[in-house]
Amino acid sequence: MWAQHELILRPYPRGFHLITREVVQALPQLPEVRAGLLHVFIQHTSASLSLNENASPDVRRDFERYFNHVVPQNWPGWEHTLEGPDDMPAHIKASLLGHSVMLPVRAGRLALGTWQGIYLGEHRDRGGPRRLLLTLQGEPLPPAPPGTR
Amino acid sequence: MWAQHELILRPYPRGFHLITREVVQALPQLPEVRAGLLHVFIQHTSASLSLNENASPDVRRDFERYFNHVVPQNWPGWEHTLEGPDDMPAHIKASLLGHSVMLPVRAGRLALGTWQGIYLGEHRDRGGPRRLLLTLQGEPLPPAPPGTR
Amino acid sequence: MWAQHELILRPYPRGFHLITREVVQALPQLPEVRAGLLHVFIQHTSASLSLNENASPDVRRDFERYFNHVVPQNWPGWEHTLEGPDDMPAHIKASLLGHSVMLPVRAGRLALGTWQGIYLGEHRDRGGPRRLLLTLQGEPLPPAPPGTR
Repeated sequence: MWAQHELILRPYPRGFHLITREVVQALPQLPEVRAGLLHVFIQHTSASLSLNENASPDVRRDFERYFNHVVPQNWPGWEHTLEGPDDMPAHIKASLLGHSVMLPVRAGRLALGTWQGIYLGEHRDRGGPRRLLLTLQGEPLPPAPPGTR
Repeated sequence: MWAQHELILRPYPRGFHLITREVVQALPQLPEVRAGLLHVFIQHTSASLSLNENASPDVRRDFERYFNHVVPQNWPGWEHTLEGPDDMPAHIKASLLGHSVMLPVRAGRLALGTWQGIYLGEHRDRGGPRRLLLTLQGEPLPPAPPGTR
Repeated sequence: MWAQHELILRPYPRGFHLITREVVQALPQLPEVRAGLLHVFIQHTSASLSLNENASPDVRRDFERYFNHVVPQNWPGWEHTLEGPDDMPAHIKASLLGHSVMLPVRAGRLALGTWQGIYLGEHRDRGGPRRLLLTLQGEPLPPAPPGTR
């Protein structure tokens, strides 16, 4: 089975944000998949998707601080500065972190580790709403026997 | 449906290059896929595949300049120098950027954002031709009714 | 066809380790796949999976040295230090390198390049056993004609 859904995220401030719940809620077919994969794709080049620690907000703040440090806005090497000082670093961060996550599905649920959550990396100062495309595929669960649901 | 194609890229100079068109042209089955995924894989460890801005050539130059800066050839920490000064940095860049991209397919086309293109990162001075393996899968479009094509 | 297997890796010391053989051995269905994909996923946020050079051990030592250099434990910017000095750098390294690899399968084998192997990046000092989830999918080989096996 295949299912594809567009998901428009509300504008998030610059930084790293947990979006696992929003992704799962956009997938009504998830409980029907016995074994499969979910592809979460962002249709932009200045924001990223990755997987990391879902509990402590200070981890997400450290992500933002570290990536600002290692991809500095004021680096004299940037040539593409026409779209603002946050633009070129945002492109680099997006490629370092990734444009998609691929997640295993097992017994109708995302088979994430206990501490894993999906991070949206919003790398622009005002990124606006971001468009995701979710592609779910897998082997369907056998239909429940009559009378058991 | 599944389709797999090998694609040999002509030698590119060191740097970042848009290869979206070459990839799409190697996929005759793409228009037949209603919903699916395309996996583009590079069978090398000193070149990379990623997704980024497809319009301004200065963005691709900034990518090359930034990655040369953050993974310097003359770093005294390198132990593996036998294959030349560009080799070990090329391996690191390949792992930072990635060996493959996974792209959603929708209604017979790659469902990329307006500004997204596939980047080949050629990280060696003389990388030569590079071998890609394209794996396309998905749900086929229903056949057109008789007389409509 | 779909197959999903859990693979618990024995504890590895901090550093980069080749695990291609362990992954392949956990996949009895691999020889039956004509064309497909293998997804290897790590259910942790302080270890990584990537693909790189499978021959020289000094390449893997350079990976460890480089990533310790670029993501330093003693960086004054870290706020999340409660779980030890190796924890926050491990999260960053895991996102730089990735939580999964997607590999093409062709004619019953992983279609890797000659020099490609799967790297476990163990980024904690004592990471313990790590849990992988392998998801194999693809088009099965046609059954052998009677008498040919």
